[in-house]
Amino acid sequence: MNPDLLFLFTDRIGVFVFAISGGIVAVRKEMDLFGVIVMAFLPAIGGGTLRDLILSQPVFWLEDTQTLGFAIAGGLAAFFFHRWLENFRPLRWADAIGMALFAVTGAAKAAALGHGWPVVLIMGTMTASAGGLLRDVVANEKPLLLLKSEIYATAALLGSLVYFLTSLWLGDEFLAFILGLVSAFVLRALGIIFKLSLPRSPF
Amino acid sequence: MNPDLLFLFTDRIGVFVFAISGGIVAVRKEMDLFGVIVMAFLPAIGGGTLRDLILSQPVFWLEDTQTLGFAIAGGLAAFFFHRWLENFRPLRWADAIGMALFAVTGAAKAAALGHGWPVVLIMGTMTASAGGLLRDVVANEKPLLLLKSEIYATAALLGSLVYFLTSLWLGDEFLAFILGLVSAFVLRALGIIFKLSLPRSPF
Amino acid sequence: MNPDLLFLFTDRIGVFVFAISGGIVAVRKEMDLFGVIVMAFLPAIGGGTLRDLILSQPVFWLEDTQTLGFAIAGGLAAFFFHRWLENFRPLRWADAIGMALFAVTGAAKAAALGHGWPVVLIMGTMTASAGGLLRDVVANEKPLLLLKSEIYATAALLGSLVYFLTSLWLGDEFLAFILGLVSAFVLRALGIIFKLSLPRSPF
Repeated sequence: MNPDLLFLFTDRIGVFVFAISGGIVAVRKEMDLFGVIVMAFLPAIGGGTLRDLILSQPVFWLEDTQTLGFAIAGGLAAFFFHRWLENFRPLRWADAIGMALFAVTGAAKAAALGHGWPVVLIMGTMTASAGGLLRDVVANEKPLLLLKSEIYATAALLGSLVYFLTSLWLGDEFLAFILGLVSAFVLRALGIIFKLSLPRSPF
Repeated sequence: MNPDLLFLFTDRIGVFVFAISGGIVAVRKEMDLFGVIVMAFLPAIGGGTLRDLILSQPVFWLEDTQTLGFAIAGGLAAFFFHRWLENFRPLRWADAIGMALFAVTGAAKAAALGHGWPVVLIMGTMTASAGGLLRDVVANEKPLLLLKSEIYATAALLGSLVYFLTSLWLGDEFLAFILGLVSAFVLRALGIIFKLSLPRSPF
Repeated sequence: MNPDLLFLFTDRIGVFVFAISGGIVAVRKEMDLFGVIVMAFLPAIGGGTLRDLILSQPVFWLEDTQTLGFAIAGGLAAFFFHRWLENFRPLRWADAIGMALFAVTGAAKAAALGHGWPVVLIMGTMTASAGGLLRDVVANEKPLLLLKSEIYATAALLGSLVYFLTSLWLGDEFLAFILGLVSAFVLRALGIIFKLSLPRSPF
């Protein structure tokens, strides 16, 4: 499997799994089939859409319409199999891979446009996590991303940082991509396994 | 009445009626006059604004500022006459006309830019329904569009599809516009009359 | 202190104080540190971001990344000192200055692009107040901007109008800027002191 194909494959898994997360929220909220599909789109393509709008770039799924198919497939999977999927443990690991990939992709897109580290880190984190935030806001739920005692966006931030520094210091784009991806995934995995969390204000 | 004038007239009615829907939610939520105007803008111009941002097009109301006047008028109508308007049955038919027109307009704009059917269908549906979703999200209410057991976005989707196929097969833009408009309106009308709804997840 | 430096100084205060308002909401909602930073960004840069997207302009903080630092500082201040800041009366006056400045800056940006008064007034009001609205929507709270019986967005609207008219009639951009700023601030100050409010629908 060459790198491009591996990248495409991972991206499709990420979109599909993110879409499932939206579809499950929709089913829980007793939305109809249309609501399930809309709620599947939000986490699957919301973060990347916001990234492209802010960077003044063409929105990625206008060209890559296959992505939309995978998002719809994730929504349908949630519609039909949500009971089974909610308790399917491997899903959170697939979600972690998707998060790590989206973070590095977002960071790389910002860096390729010549932006400095503040914008690169924000875009990486936003691509990985803003879609999930949109999902909760539209579902009129408490925003999990901001509340839950889990390491999620922080892992996306770390992945973006590792990508940026490796790319800057070693000049090897491919290596930077891999290292960023792995570090985001590993921090997220540690967070899941050891139930790590960010502090709340103790004051 | 020539076609262009008819189109403009229908569009103004759509904006005005959509704005009333936002204003009524605002009055129910005990918002002040400013809140009523903001909430009138969201359904009236929110869907088209989102469409233009995603398509990288100039936002339509920057040029067509008359639209803003009709949106404000709808908000003021809700502010002063909401009791009467809430029970005014013809409003939902005017809303159905607006929805049908916005769907076909959105689909046509995407098609004119050379996009394929997935983007055309999304843009048609989004133009007609995303503003109402925004209204509910900002009002901190359950999103009616995704929950209510009514055929609404589905009608917009059908109208976009009929427009796209007619335009593709017959090559007659005007006919495609009319057929798309009529099919969206008829499906919505059937949904209202026979209380049709999309299924929820039965699992 | 020359005008440019004074402008920059006021802008930084505005961003910092707006960010504090977001951070305080986040701490109240028991969000973690990441949530506090995100919620600080929303009011601090949300209004200007929306303005730039709608005007098809490069989003301001992609170049002016220093702004992001002030937003983060505001979030951290709320994280550590929220108890003290919530009761710190001068904050609302700093907020009023920020609001006035953001309104005139937004109006000036729209006017410089050649837009007429409807767009200029909307952009001024939006730059000053949409970020606070975003903050409340994401926090899943009732939107203060639309509900609270205070003169806030109305002051931003007045400032934008005074700026526009002065610039049009006298042709002096600097004077227009100052008069707009002062009138927005004074109306907001009168609103605070005399507890002025906009009417709700009495019907």
